[in-house]
Amino acid sequence: MTRTYNFSAGPSTIAESVLKQAQSELLEWSGCGASVMEISHRSKEFVAFAEQTEQRLRSLLKIPNNYQVLFLQGGATTQFAMVPMNLLGGKQSAAYCCTGAWSQKAINEAKLFCDVSIATDSATDQYLDIPEQESWVIDADAAYLHYTDNETIHGVEFDYIPDSKGLPLVSDMSSNMLSRPVDVSRFGVIYAGAQKNMGGAGITVVIVRDDLIGNVIPKTPSMLNYSMHAKQDSMLNTPPTWSWYILGLVLEWIEAQGGIEQLAINNQVKADKLYTTIDESDFYRNLVQPNARSRMNIPFLLTDSALESVFLEQAGKADLDGLKGHRAVGGLRASIYNAMPLAGINHLVDFMNEFERTHG
Amino acid sequence: MTRTYNFSAGPSTIAESVLKQAQSELLEWSGCGASVMEISHRSKEFVAFAEQTEQRLRSLLKIPNNYQVLFLQGGATTQFAMVPMNLLGGKQSAAYCCTGAWSQKAINEAKLFCDVSIATDSATDQYLDIPEQESWVIDADAAYLHYTDNETIHGVEFDYIPDSKGLPLVSDMSSNMLSRPVDVSRFGVIYAGAQKNMGGAGITVVIVRDDLIGNVIPKTPSMLNYSMHAKQDSMLNTPPTWSWYILGLVLEWIEAQGGIEQLAINNQVKADKLYTTIDESDFYRNLVQPNARSRMNIPFLLTDSALESVFLEQAGKADLDGLKGHRAVGGLRASIYNAMPLAGINHLVDFMNEFERTHG
Repeated sequence: MTRTYNFSAGPSTIAESVLKQAQSELLEWSGCGASVMEISHRSKEFVAFAEQTEQRLRSLLKIPNNYQVLFLQGGATTQFAMVPMNLLGGKQSAAYCCTGAWSQKAINEAKLFCDVSIATDSATDQYLDIPEQESWVIDADAAYLHYTDNETIHGVEFDYIPDSKGLPLVSDMSSNMLSRPVDVSRFGVIYAGAQKNMGGAGITVVIVRDDLIGNVIPKTPSMLNYSMHAKQDSMLNTPPTWSWYILGLVLEWIEAQGGIEQLAINNQVKADKLYTTIDESDFYRNLVQPNARSRMNIPFLLTDSALESVFLEQAGKADLDGLKGHRAVGGLRASIYNAMPLAGINHLVDFMNEFERTHG
Repeated sequence: MTRTYNFSAGPSTIAESVLKQAQSELLEWSGCGASVMEISHRSKEFVAFAEQTEQRLRSLLKIPNNYQVLFLQGGATTQFAMVPMNLLGGKQSAAYCCTGAWSQKAINEAKLFCDVSIATDSATDQYLDIPEQESWVIDADAAYLHYTDNETIHGVEFDYIPDSKGLPLVSDMSSNMLSRPVDVSRFGVIYAGAQKNMGGAGITVVIVRDDLIGNVIPKTPSMLNYSMHAKQDSMLNTPPTWSWYILGLVLEWIEAQGGIEQLAINNQVKADKLYTTIDESDFYRNLVQPNARSRMNIPFLLTDSALESVFLEQAGKADLDGLKGHRAVGGLRASIYNAMPLAGINHLVDFMNEFERTHG
């Protein structure tokens, strides 16, 4: 058996050097005589690692000092509830952009807690575009404006930061976090599950501006209260130590790659290569508007959809895995996060060209 | 460096064979050509492993068919909120036993959602005893009765299952789950974080009777709703796949040890040995009433408390780690979960005897 190129949408590929380090110290970590899984989260070794991880993230993303960085459980889906529970304050409504399946989920969850005002909705475009901001209607009485920076299922990504017209701007960056620089000071909250660009599943990063903390709605559980986590340095209870550890190793790896700025360049090269292959062919199609195309998740169709299963089977034999499209939209999809090397893209493109030659 | 005997209260020691298996397949798991961390939770390999893990747990604990087994995030602290949110129904109050620090935390969280009626409280005994059930007062109008089967900080453990007088019985078994057989049919809900007897932090097992599912209070987030998780086989969103995997390996290890029945025997032998060492000495003390003593967490004091730091330092040099008592109560503590071998107890007892001889 050999490691394959893994195009899964999440959980997704992790740099081999990270895995090898985790493997080498799995039984004895950091002079503890035990695995990182077996030691107290309050041990000096783990606390030091956790603090170092936060500092690495602050440095990589240039996070201003008036933001808390929280390491939580529950994934983005828990944030879909935590955002309104923590940010509504006394307000009755929140504004959302609907640009794909994940936006929809965030909206449906928010409706448990408040009225949802839709600033823009690209459902009528089958989520193949990100609407120009000039067309949006933002409810001035909303507590915040929420958008999904990258949609893994529909393969659309914002190529700009929206103007929230003075409202706190909240973004789900689960699938493109750390893939390009971002001006954190424009945001009230940024959140992201780790299992795409930051390691394994089980830990969620939340970056939240200080002034938005401390005013939860009644009956908010402690574990869903940003303030409680901030006061306890994300150790309100036992945190997911292994996932935190892997996240720390991934951040170290990102530094070694030259930081987010370099990864952004690499990611653009990778995405351009794949989109070009698709666009130059009549055999493959991607229907997303060019300026809204995701650099992370590239869905594509075969002109003859009956060939999809053949494509997947032969791709598997060529050590190319995880290329099945999401069940909600079908087709094929290549997720090419930070840890997917250019060699993987080249291998995929070669395979696609060969498959087209033999089946086109 | 060598692996030490690790008496941490949680996260805590994991069987070396489990760690070695995880290490050996860290880069390539189950023929996937990728780490278990890197593959989709919906891949056939992971889904099969997840189902197998549930079946192992059902078999080990003899869980009746009318119970759901959920694999969630957030630890017991999240369950402190989920229990009232899911079980209150239309009722205004819930009954709680207060037998230590973790009971108190569960009670404080429940007060966010309802009135709490205290069935029994051993605070006046400094939590050194589990009150006889004859003395309890159980509110007949309560939605359920909650108790903490084992208190890690105060070192007390129930040696019986309470009679809940017809109320659904709810138990936090975070620190003694799988350490002895339990008649699950007596319970409405049993929950436990994994990081003591079931593996690493990041996953929480909830066993809940079918009829208690599906009636949450308003504004319950989807991720805190048992019904939503049950309908999605605990894959409402991306679950913590690595923690689930380690839990599965631990269950396999438990089977290889002869199941919970054999572990219960082993655990009693281990605890008896340590308590006997303490009781036969004037140098060490454990103040808990004998019938309420925990088999999992054994706090003890030195007659001369000034020697504690010397004890910890010399223990560390003898490869005995994690023996510092919880900051809330001080002193020393040995946590001896399933994965602590008898050899570790023997080594600790030898060390304690030698330390007494040289410092007593």
